[in-house]
Amino acid sequence: MSTQVAKAEGKLGILIPGLGAVATTMIAGVEAVKKGISAPIGALSQMGRIRLGKRTDNRYPLIKDFVPLANLEDIVFGGWDVYEDNVYEAAINAAVLDRSLLDQVKTELEAVKPMKAVFDTAYIKNLDGKHIKEAPTKWDLANLLIQDIENFKAANNVSRVVMVWCASTEKYIEPSAVHATIEAFEEGLKNNDPSIAPSMIYAYASIKAGVPFTNGAPNLTVDINALLDYSLQQGVAIAGKDFKTGQTLMKTILAPGLHARALGVRGWFSTNILGNRDGLVLDDPDNFKTKEVSKLSVLEEIFEPEVNPELYGDLYHKVRINYYPPHGDNKESWDNIDIFGWLGYPMQIKVNFLCRDSILAAPIVLDLALFMDLAQRAELSGIQEWLSFYLKSPQTAPGLPPMHDIFKQLIKMQNTLRHIMGEDLITHLGLDYYQDLVDAL
Amino acid sequence: MSTQVAKAEGKLGILIPGLGAVATTMIAGVEAVKKGISAPIGALSQMGRIRLGKRTDNRYPLIKDFVPLANLEDIVFGGWDVYEDNVYEAAINAAVLDRSLLDQVKTELEAVKPMKAVFDTAYIKNLDGKHIKEAPTKWDLANLLIQDIENFKAANNVSRVVMVWCASTEKYIEPSAVHATIEAFEEGLKNNDPSIAPSMIYAYASIKAGVPFTNGAPNLTVDINALLDYSLQQGVAIAGKDFKTGQTLMKTILAPGLHARALGVRGWFSTNILGNRDGLVLDDPDNFKTKEVSKLSVLEEIFEPEVNPELYGDLYHKVRINYYPPHGDNKESWDNIDIFGWLGYPMQIKVNFLCRDSILAAPIVLDLALFMDLAQRAELSGIQEWLSFYLKSPQTAPGLPPMHDIFKQLIKMQNTLRHIMGEDLITHLGLDYYQDLVDAL
Amino acid sequence: MSTQVAKAEGKLGILIPGLGAVATTMIAGVEAVKKGISAPIGALSQMGRIRLGKRTDNRYPLIKDFVPLANLEDIVFGGWDVYEDNVYEAAINAAVLDRSLLDQVKTELEAVKPMKAVFDTAYIKNLDGKHIKEAPTKWDLANLLIQDIENFKAANNVSRVVMVWCASTEKYIEPSAVHATIEAFEEGLKNNDPSIAPSMIYAYASIKAGVPFTNGAPNLTVDINALLDYSLQQGVAIAGKDFKTGQTLMKTILAPGLHARALGVRGWFSTNILGNRDGLVLDDPDNFKTKEVSKLSVLEEIFEPEVNPELYGDLYHKVRINYYPPHGDNKESWDNIDIFGWLGYPMQIKVNFLCRDSILAAPIVLDLALFMDLAQRAELSGIQEWLSFYLKSPQTAPGLPPMHDIFKQLIKMQNTLRHIMGEDLITHLGLDYYQDLVDAL
Amino acid sequence: MSTQVAKAEGKLGILIPGLGAVATTMIAGVEAVKKGISAPIGALSQMGRIRLGKRTDNRYPLIKDFVPLANLEDIVFGGWDVYEDNVYEAAINAAVLDRSLLDQVKTELEAVKPMKAVFDTAYIKNLDGKHIKEAPTKWDLANLLIQDIENFKAANNVSRVVMVWCASTEKYIEPSAVHATIEAFEEGLKNNDPSIAPSMIYAYASIKAGVPFTNGAPNLTVDINALLDYSLQQGVAIAGKDFKTGQTLMKTILAPGLHARALGVRGWFSTNILGNRDGLVLDDPDNFKTKEVSKLSVLEEIFEPEVNPELYGDLYHKVRINYYPPHGDNKESWDNIDIFGWLGYPMQIKVNFLCRDSILAAPIVLDLALFMDLAQRAELSGIQEWLSFYLKSPQTAPGLPPMHDIFKQLIKMQNTLRHIMGEDLITHLGLDYYQDLVDAL
Repeated sequence: MSTQVAKAEGKLGILIPGLGAVATTMIAGVEAVKKGISAPIGALSQMGRIRLGKRTDNRYPLIKDFVPLANLEDIVFGGWDVYEDNVYEAAINAAVLDRSLLDQVKTELEAVKPMKAVFDTAYIKNLDGKHIKEAPTKWDLANLLIQDIENFKAANNVSRVVMVWCASTEKYIEPSAVHATIEAFEEGLKNNDPSIAPSMIYAYASIKAGVPFTNGAPNLTVDINALLDYSLQQGVAIAGKDFKTGQTLMKTILAPGLHARALGVRGWFSTNILGNRDGLVLDDPDNFKTKEVSKLSVLEEIFEPEVNPELYGDLYHKVRINYYPPHGDNKESWDNIDIFGWLGYPMQIKVNFLCRDSILAAPIVLDLALFMDLAQRAELSGIQEWLSFYLKSPQTAPGLPPMHDIFKQLIKMQNTLRHIMGEDLITHLGLDYYQDLVDAL
Repeated sequence: MSTQVAKAEGKLGILIPGLGAVATTMIAGVEAVKKGISAPIGALSQMGRIRLGKRTDNRYPLIKDFVPLANLEDIVFGGWDVYEDNVYEAAINAAVLDRSLLDQVKTELEAVKPMKAVFDTAYIKNLDGKHIKEAPTKWDLANLLIQDIENFKAANNVSRVVMVWCASTEKYIEPSAVHATIEAFEEGLKNNDPSIAPSMIYAYASIKAGVPFTNGAPNLTVDINALLDYSLQQGVAIAGKDFKTGQTLMKTILAPGLHARALGVRGWFSTNILGNRDGLVLDDPDNFKTKEVSKLSVLEEIFEPEVNPELYGDLYHKVRINYYPPHGDNKESWDNIDIFGWLGYPMQIKVNFLCRDSILAAPIVLDLALFMDLAQRAELSGIQEWLSFYLKSPQTAPGLPPMHDIFKQLIKMQNTLRHIMGEDLITHLGLDYYQDLVDAL
Repeated sequence: MSTQVAKAEGKLGILIPGLGAVATTMIAGVEAVKKGISAPIGALSQMGRIRLGKRTDNRYPLIKDFVPLANLEDIVFGGWDVYEDNVYEAAINAAVLDRSLLDQVKTELEAVKPMKAVFDTAYIKNLDGKHIKEAPTKWDLANLLIQDIENFKAANNVSRVVMVWCASTEKYIEPSAVHATIEAFEEGLKNNDPSIAPSMIYAYASIKAGVPFTNGAPNLTVDINALLDYSLQQGVAIAGKDFKTGQTLMKTILAPGLHARALGVRGWFSTNILGNRDGLVLDDPDNFKTKEVSKLSVLEEIFEPEVNPELYGDLYHKVRINYYPPHGDNKESWDNIDIFGWLGYPMQIKVNFLCRDSILAAPIVLDLALFMDLAQRAELSGIQEWLSFYLKSPQTAPGLPPMHDIFKQLIKMQNTLRHIMGEDLITHLGLDYYQDLVDAL
Repeated sequence: MSTQVAKAEGKLGILIPGLGAVATTMIAGVEAVKKGISAPIGALSQMGRIRLGKRTDNRYPLIKDFVPLANLEDIVFGGWDVYEDNVYEAAINAAVLDRSLLDQVKTELEAVKPMKAVFDTAYIKNLDGKHIKEAPTKWDLANLLIQDIENFKAANNVSRVVMVWCASTEKYIEPSAVHATIEAFEEGLKNNDPSIAPSMIYAYASIKAGVPFTNGAPNLTVDINALLDYSLQQGVAIAGKDFKTGQTLMKTILAPGLHARALGVRGWFSTNILGNRDGLVLDDPDNFKTKEVSKLSVLEEIFEPEVNPELYGDLYHKVRINYYPPHGDNKESWDNIDIFGWLGYPMQIKVNFLCRDSILAAPIVLDLALFMDLAQRAELSGIQEWLSFYLKSPQTAPGLPPMHDIFKQLIKMQNTLRHIMGEDLITHLGLDYYQDLVDAL
C-alpha cells in the first residue's frame, strides 16, 4: 500500500480553534524544537520508534523515518480565539511554560494572531471573550470560516491544512433530527437551529474546505451522521473526540492490566483538582456533564461487565472534577480502585498523578495534526479509528463499539502504519524462535 | 493445529515444592471453588474470555471453553516442604485466608501432607525446617524425588503431572560450567557440586520424569543450558521464572503505558513492605540479591534506553523490600515515578498498592499448572515463552531478549491459544469496518 | 475544687437520639468491654493517662483513676430512632462490627429497643423511617420526650442521665428570632415554628429534664441563645457540636503543626469517600451545606489569616464528600495541602486516611457522655468548652472565638481536669530542671 | 525577669561549620530578605506571633517585637567547609534556590568564603574535600578554630557570635571515658584520641571562646558530660541535636495527635528518598546508624509504651533513607501508619510529604542562631531545652527524658519567652469566660 501515500511536499498549515493553554503550549514547543532549544517529548510522531520484522531483526526506526510525515520545519500555525491576545500573550497568561523559554520564541509566537472566533455563550457560560464573528446565520458563519481558511492558505503559501479543535468543552447535547443528515444540517445552519453548536460550524467548514478535522474536546461536533456522511462524500479524514490525558490516560493503562489478569473491580473513584481555564469551564454543571459522559465510558468498554458479570457487574464508577485555583495548570488526580482477587479477597490501588494538563495534551495535538495529514494523503477518508490511541471517546463506525484499552489502540495504530507502508503486521506469536531450537536438536 | 492437542483425560496431579502461603492459598481456593463456596477470581484459565473473529462477531468464549484444559474436579494436589504441617495447618499459619473459609475445606486440606523436602541452608539461611530428605549425593536426592513422583501418581491414579515451584528465593548465583551441559550437570549431581541449588534438583527430577516444570521464584533453576537442552531432549515443557505479582505486575502495566506515549522517565523508586515468610527470607541480602536482579530487569526491556536515550537514558531505578511484620501477607507497595513530558517538563506518578501477596499469586499457580499441562499435550517442549504473561523474568530462547510489557505478553498468549486451536490471529488492524462505509456510499 | 465534685453513685443512663452506626458501635463496644472481650481503644476516659506534677515525679495515672467517672458497669443505654430495629439488628445492618463480635453481646443489644423518634422529612430528605412520634405541636413532642426520659429512669433505676445526639445531619439553617430567647422558643414550640428543628426539640426536652445534652452533629440545635440561656438557668451542662473524626481530626492535628513552624499554606483540598447512611444523607446538598460550614471553619481559626496575611491570606480551602457505596462505613479521606516555606518555595503534603467512621466516633460518644456527667456533678453548667477536644465546631461563650487546634484543646481539657481535682496546672516551662544544674556547680 | 535581658546591641556573627545546601540556603535567604526580595517564611523568629494575656485581649505581637532579638540587618555570616567554594558557588552547586534569586544577592554571597575545615575521613567516608586544616593534635586544631573566631570578630567588628553546626552526619559513636569529664576530654584532644570527632573539636572551641553552640546534626558532639559541664562553667548556652525537618517533623505532629485520642499504633513505616549530599553521606551504613538512632527515638517518648502497653506495646517502627539522585534536594517521604481504634479495629494513615530539605532547615538555622543569642543575653547557660521545638533529639538535663511532642515543645518555648519577658504563662484553662456567663444571670 505504501506506494499510494502522497509525499509530504510543501507547507502544512495547522489551524486551531481555541488558542488557549494547550494550543499555545504546543505551538511554543514546536518553535522551541525547531530552534533546537528543547525536545518534543511525548510526541510519538517525533520521538517514537516502531518495531519492524522479527524481534531478532533489530529494526526499530523512528516513526517519522518510517512513514512520510510533514517536517516540523514545514508547519505554519494559525487559529481562532474569543480573546484577541496573540500566542505569546496567551502563553504568558496560561502560565504553563517558563517565561524564559517563551521569550526565546517570542517573535514566532507574536506572529500568530487569532482570527475572530465563532462563539455562543449558550454553549459555554463561564467565558466572556469579545473577539467574536458576527453574521446573520450559522451558514454565514461557516462561510466566514471557510474564507479564513482560504486566506490563511494564500497568505502563508501552504499546500495542505488540518484543523484541530483545542477550544473549550461545550454544554452537553444529544444528537437530534438536525444532526441526522447533511441536508437537515445545512438547513439548520441557515435556520440558526439552536442544536448546532459552534464546534459543529467549524467542523462543517473544515470538511467543506477539504481540511481534515480533529475534535479534541468531548463535544458532540463530528460525532453525528450528518458530518460523518459528509466527510465520506468529501473524502476528508475526521477524528475525535477528547484528547486522552491525565487521569483517563492512566485509567486506560491500568484497567486493561486488571482485566488482563481477571481481577475484579468493585469501585473506582476518581477525583481531579485543577485551576486553569479548563477547570473554570468545567465548574459549570452543564459543561461538566459533557466531560463526565466522556470520562465515564472508558471503563465500561474495557471491563465488559455484560460478559464478565462476576468480575465487573457491580462496578461503581464515579468521576469528580474540582476547580482548585492554587494548582493552575498543574492538574492532579487521585484514584482509589477497589479490586478483588482470588476467592473475592479485597485489595486497593491508589494512584496519585501530579501531571500538567497542557504538557500532556500538547504533543497529542501535534501527533494528531501530523497523522491526520498522513491519513488524508493515504486517502483514508471518514473516521480514523486508528488514532483512537489519543482520544478519550473514540469515534467509530456506526454500530461498532469503541476500544478504550490503550494497548489495543497502540497495536491498531502501529499495525495501521505497518499496513500503510506494506510491512508485515505483528501478532507477537513468535513460536518460530522455539521451533528453531527443536529443529537444532 | 487444534486437532493435535490431546484431550485432558484422567486426573492431573499438581506437585508443589514449597507448601507455604502461596501454595496453600491456591489449594484451599481450588477446593472452595469445587464446593461452590467461592470463585476463582484472578485465574484467567477459569474466569477469562478470549475474543475470536471480528469485533462485530461477538464471539467471546471463556478460555476454558475454548481450549481443552484439565477440569478442576480432576486435580489432585501434592508437594514437599521443610515443615511437616499438612496444608490445613500451613494455611492457618500463613494467615492469608479466613479461618471460617479454611474450616469448610478442612478435610481436603488435611489430606495433603508434605513429602520431605530437598533443602540446603547454604541457599536459604532464614529458614529452619526439619522435614528434610537425607542422602549421600544430590544425584540420590534427585532419584528420591522421582520416586516421590512415581509414588504420588500410583497412589492417586493420576494420568498426568505438572510441577510448580512455590518455595522460597534462594541466594543469588550465576551460571557456571556445571550448568552448561546436561553431562556436566549430572556429573555435578553425583559430585555434590555446591553450584547445584536444591531447586535445580527438583527441576532435573521433574524433567527426567517427563513432568513439565515451572519456576515461580527468581532462582536460576531451569534458566541454564543444561536443563533447557535436557527438556528439549525429553520433550518436556518448562517455564520460568518468578511469579509476576504486586509491584512488578503494576510496573509492567504502567511502564508500557508511559512508553506508548513517549513520555520520558528519569527515576522510578519502588518500595515494598511485607511481613510474611517471603519477607523474612528476603531480609537476608544474599536472597534479596536474587529477587532484586529479577525485579530490576523489567524496566530496561520495556523502555529500551539504548534506542531511546533521550527518554530513558538516565533512568534511575531502585527497588527496596522491607520486612514489616505488622502487615503479614498484606504486602504493600509504594512507587514514585519521575516522568517528563513535552519540552522536558517534569511530572510525578505515585502508586500505592495495598495488595495481598498470596491472593495475587495463587491464581497464577493454577493457571500455569493448567497451561503447562496444555502445552505438554500440544507437544510444545522446552521453554513456553507464551506464558511469560505470568512471570517477572521470562525465560526465552538463548539470545532472544525477553518481553516484559504485560500487554505484548497477553497478545502473545492469546494468539498462541488461537494458533493452537486453528483460529485467526488478531492484529487489531480493523480497516475493513471503514472500507465498508466507503463502499456503502 | 476536688471536694466539690459529687461522686458517681448509682446508675448512669445514656440516652441517644439516633441508634445508627455510631451509637450501636459504641453500645456494642461497651458491652464487649464489660465482658472482657475487647478493649475501649480510642476512649481517653478509659485508656488515657494524665501527667501530674513534674516530669521527674513519674505520676501518670489513668484519667478514670484520677477523676470520679461513672463506671462502665453502671451504664444503662436507651434511645430513639426512626427505624424500629433493636440495637442488635441495627448494628448488623450498619455492618461496622464483625458479626462474630455482635453475637457475643446479642442479648444485651437486643434489649435496647428504640423509642419512637421525633422526626421531620423537611430537615432530612434522604431518610424514610416510620417509627415516629405524632402530636399536634412541637411543644407536645417535647413533653413526650420528657415523659420518655422519666419512664426510662424509673424503669432502669438510674440516678443520672445524659443525652448525646448521634442522629443525622439536618438541613442548614441560621439562627433567627425564634432562637433568640427561651420565651420566643417556647412560643415557637407551641406554634410549630418551622425554624425549630427536631434536634432542638430533643435539646429543649433534655435541658428541661435537667439532663446534660451533647450535640454530635453539625446541626444548629443548642447553638442558639435561647437554649444557652435556658441551660444556665436550669444549671445543666451542654456541649457541641459535631464529633471530630476522620479528616477534620487529621486537619486539626496537621494545621497546628504547620502553623507552629510558620509554614505558609496556599491551598487545602479535602475529599472524602464513604458509603454509609451518613454518606447518603450528605449526598443531599441541603444537608451537606450544614456539614460543609462545620468542616470549613477549622482552618480559619487555626491559621488566623487576619493576623498572618503573608502566610495564610490566600488560603483556598475546599471540602468534598462523595457517596461511594463500595466503601460502606470505611470512610476514606484524601487531602492535598499546598504549603510554602523559606522564601516562598512550594511543597506539598498528601494525606490518605483509610479510616472507619463509626470506629472513630464511638469512643467519642462514650467519653462525652462520661465527661458531661462529670461536669454536671462538678456543677459546671452551660457550655463545656473544655470538651471542644471532641468537636468539629466547638460552642463557646458568645463573642469568644472557638479554638480548633487539637493540642490547645487537649491542654484545656487536661488542665480543666487538674483544676477540678485541685492539682497544679502544667505550663511546660520547666526551667527549674536546669537551674538545678547551675546550682549544683 | 525581662529587665535582665541585655539588649541586642552591635553586630551578631553567625559562624557555621558546613557551608553546604542548608547553610547557603539560609544565608542567601537572609540576604534576599534584607533586600526586600523575599520573605523569611518558616522562621518563627521573623514571621511568628505570640498570644499574650486572655483570648479576648487580642494581643498577638510578632515574636521579634516581643523579645529583643538581633535584627537581620546586624547579622554577619562566616563559616568553615571542606570545599573552598564561596557561598555563591556552593549555593549554585546545591541547586536548591533558583539561579535568578541567587544572582540578586551574588555580591553578598561571594563575600562569604569558607575557612579551612577540621575534618576526618574516619568520621565521614563519602566526602572528599581538600580545604582542610592540618595540625599535629586535635588540641592544636581547636586552638586554630578559636583563632578563626577571634579573627572573624575583629575583621567584621561583631560584638557577639553564635555557632550553628550545619555540616554532615558523622559515623555513629557512643560516649566513653574520654567524654566523661572536661579534664579527660582536654587530655584526649592533646592525645588525638580517636573518639573525639571533628564536631566535638568545634564545640569545644566554641564554648572555650564563649560562643553559644548549636548542633544541627545527629552527631554526639555536645551530648557528653565533658562539654555540658564545661558549658555551665563557661556560662555558655548549648543546644542540640539534629534539625527537625521533613518526616520527623511530620511524625512529631501526627504522633501526638494519635496519642491524644488514645488511638493504638501497631506499625509505623517511614521511607525517604533524597538525592542531595546529605543523602549521599547517609548512604554509608555507619553514618546512617547515627541518623537512624536519632529518628527512631521520637515515637518511643511520645507514645510511652511502658505506661500504655495495650496501645503502643507492640509498635514496630522502621525508618529507611534512600539515596535517589533524580530528586536532588527535593526530599520526599512516605509513611504508612497502622493504627487501631475502638475494639481494636485497624485503620491506616499514609502521608506523602513532597518537601525540600534545605527549605525546611534554613529558617530553623536562623531561628536557633537568634534564640541562642537571646538565651546567652538572658544568662541562660548550658542546655536550652526550650529550643527542643527545632530538634529531632533534644538534649536535656541528665536523667530527664526529652519531650518530642512538637506541641508541648511549642508551649515550652512560648511560655519560656513569656517568662523571660515577665508575662503570664498560658494554661488554656479559660473557665473564667464561662463563670462570667453564670455571674451575668
